[in-house]
Amino acid sequence: VIVQRPRDNGLKFKGFDLGVSARWLQEQRKKSLARARVGLNPREAALIERIKRLKKESGTHSPSAWTLAQRIPELRLKVDACFLSNPYATQLFLMHFHREVVRPRKLRALLELYPSQNRVIAAKLGRVLELNPESIFVGNGAAEIIQAILHRFTHEKILVNLPTFSPYYEFTRPDTQAVYNVLRKEDNFCFNPDAYLDLVRRERPDTVVLINPNNPDGGYIPYVVMRGLLEELRSVKNVIVDESFIHFACEGNGYLYRSLADQVGRLPNLTVVKSMSKDFGVAGIRAGYAVMAPDRVRTLLDNGFLWNSSGLAEYFFDLYSRPDFQAQYERERIRFIRNSRRFFAALAKIDGLHIYPTHANFALAELSGGLSADELVCRLLIRRGIYTRTCDDKKGLEAGKFVRIAARNRPENAYIIRSLRRMIG
Amino acid sequence: VIVQRPRDNGLKFKGFDLGVSARWLQEQRKKSLARARVGLNPREAALIERIKRLKKESGTHSPSAWTLAQRIPELRLKVDACFLSNPYATQLFLMHFHREVVRPRKLRALLELYPSQNRVIAAKLGRVLELNPESIFVGNGAAEIIQAILHRFTHEKILVNLPTFSPYYEFTRPDTQAVYNVLRKEDNFCFNPDAYLDLVRRERPDTVVLINPNNPDGGYIPYVVMRGLLEELRSVKNVIVDESFIHFACEGNGYLYRSLADQVGRLPNLTVVKSMSKDFGVAGIRAGYAVMAPDRVRTLLDNGFLWNSSGLAEYFFDLYSRPDFQAQYERERIRFIRNSRRFFAALAKIDGLHIYPTHANFALAELSGGLSADELVCRLLIRRGIYTRTCDDKKGLEAGKFVRIAARNRPENAYIIRSLRRMIG
Repeated sequence: VIVQRPRDNGLKFKGFDLGVSARWLQEQRKKSLARARVGLNPREAALIERIKRLKKESGTHSPSAWTLAQRIPELRLKVDACFLSNPYATQLFLMHFHREVVRPRKLRALLELYPSQNRVIAAKLGRVLELNPESIFVGNGAAEIIQAILHRFTHEKILVNLPTFSPYYEFTRPDTQAVYNVLRKEDNFCFNPDAYLDLVRRERPDTVVLINPNNPDGGYIPYVVMRGLLEELRSVKNVIVDESFIHFACEGNGYLYRSLADQVGRLPNLTVVKSMSKDFGVAGIRAGYAVMAPDRVRTLLDNGFLWNSSGLAEYFFDLYSRPDFQAQYERERIRFIRNSRRFFAALAKIDGLHIYPTHANFALAELSGGLSADELVCRLLIRRGIYTRTCDDKKGLEAGKFVRIAARNRPENAYIIRSLRRMIG
Repeated sequence: VIVQRPRDNGLKFKGFDLGVSARWLQEQRKKSLARARVGLNPREAALIERIKRLKKESGTHSPSAWTLAQRIPELRLKVDACFLSNPYATQLFLMHFHREVVRPRKLRALLELYPSQNRVIAAKLGRVLELNPESIFVGNGAAEIIQAILHRFTHEKILVNLPTFSPYYEFTRPDTQAVYNVLRKEDNFCFNPDAYLDLVRRERPDTVVLINPNNPDGGYIPYVVMRGLLEELRSVKNVIVDESFIHFACEGNGYLYRSLADQVGRLPNLTVVKSMSKDFGVAGIRAGYAVMAPDRVRTLLDNGFLWNSSGLAEYFFDLYSRPDFQAQYERERIRFIRNSRRFFAALAKIDGLHIYPTHANFALAELSGGLSADELVCRLLIRRGIYTRTCDDKKGLEAGKFVRIAARNRPENAYIIRSLRRMIG
């Protein structure tokens, strides 16, 4: 039996020398880095063309990882860091779903029967949110809600911050004019309430939109500032606050977050939009809700939207309304925030990458080296199976240097960091 | 060992006398029928009040069996004959879903990730339907599509047949006037093309709706008549043909059905609406599509509707596009139609029940006895666990005597027949 003795400069595995020196490994790494940095081989170039074509078909949105995997099966997708969600919450939901639906053979009822009408689901949500159920409108994802409110309640002019989540200016009626409050990268994309209110006075929009935390930069307006803003915006016909990422934005002690939904009773011009896809990691279910004045909910329901929730969405909202699930979810939310903060800190340490301050579950990264955002996104996808989002198509971020990177679970975050270091570090 | 010898007037089971005479049994049956016919006990009366309240909350639609079961758990729901679907197709879908998604642990991707955008799903549908994918709009159920087209393309006046599926006059814009072509029960709710075209010339609607087969009576307009009608209706801005029940309507030899969807390329004013909830028995998934001129699809997509399909709906459409599934589904469709026809024939033989001619998977029944539609529906629900639909809230059927009964699987159909015989036969 030959027992190899550990050497100082050799690589070890469980205390044993693997027979390669650290220097050799370092050289190999350098070579691999060099390979990653040079031009693409023909296969890679062809793949990039196909990705770009798919991207073009998807307009100002990224093709979903689902579409990508189906249309370009050669891509071996490992990490979807384009998709903004809490993967731990997905896991928690799946556990319940298997235990309560799949195993007891209750899936059939969920798929076969008509789900409940909007009002019935709103009543359940009202109890857990401690809000008047008549002020809750349940949507087939936040996207449906955004479209519904922009088409019914917005008329002449909408004011949105830039950069922003594009449906707020894309889904408007053709006769609605969009005006922009530009958040400057020189200010770290920070929101300035005074400049904003000046702009509102000047432009007199009938609708203003505040996404908090903002997408795609993750900038956050604190609760007290928002409360003050809402007072100043009382004369604006529609104030839309999109809190789709609020579960990731903590203020003060602990990991508490504060929603403005309870202000709707006081402020009839306020609509709070909430996607469930992000914090609960269930985008495939299409579930969201909005809180607004009861007469607005009635207007929307009178226009249809009767059976817009699927059986799965109804099960999700049932689960969401349960205290046992809420307690479990709260643990996963905090766990995810902790991991995400570590991830953003590690991202910020990579040379050639500037990370803007974020209170969300993603970070906006600016590239300072020679590589463009598009090149980085494509290479990460082809060579490492990591799907990130180029911001080239985002108004206000067209410089070709911005990439949005979502936090995922710990091993995935570590893999993203390793891959980015290889490519640009 | 005592062997009982068969007696002539006694009741037998596998050749042996059960010790009761046929006369005794007949008397027992009569007593039971009498019990079924007399007034309700206090528990039943209280349940009926709760059902009526729930019904009232649901507006002109019936509460789903799902809502009913959750809100009134005392009801032991056995057969949902309110819900219009092919239960064999549901079974087929579930088999595939378990085999291809649940067991190989692919459920997570379906629930977690964003499904593909509308255009991507439309492309798949285009292949199987052999239609231009740019003329296909995918909807979160037909209900979403109906609302979308009525709001975007209908302006002043809509003409619908009566009785009808109420969203066609309920989901219109507030400034749209609805006018009606009344199908008379004296004509068996038959559609008269000449009278209809006269009405169109007189009323000059910008939109006409033809549900074929019609809901709730099941009346069918043959393909050749529809083709002729479409020619005559060329000057109407929007012609909506709802083919949600077309898979149950066979013409001529075999069980073939004929869709008008391929006429859209020729007729830019035509929109064919198709729910998948009925023929595939997957209402909980919310899946439907419409075929219309490509510029109309573009208009809708420009207004939002980007991610309106869930992961489950996308899986359904993927499955639907596969030849193996199509072949299996075709067998289940024919099996269901055969059973349904037997069921309608048995229904028609029950005294006190008039069944109108139907080409769909349901029948409109008119009560001729003392019992009202409402009473029958409530009693079937409370005493037999059978959920049917009173048509009291349907424009044109307010006489309090109409009940819509859906065909289900064979044992369920037999149970419905037995129960109806007990109650009104």
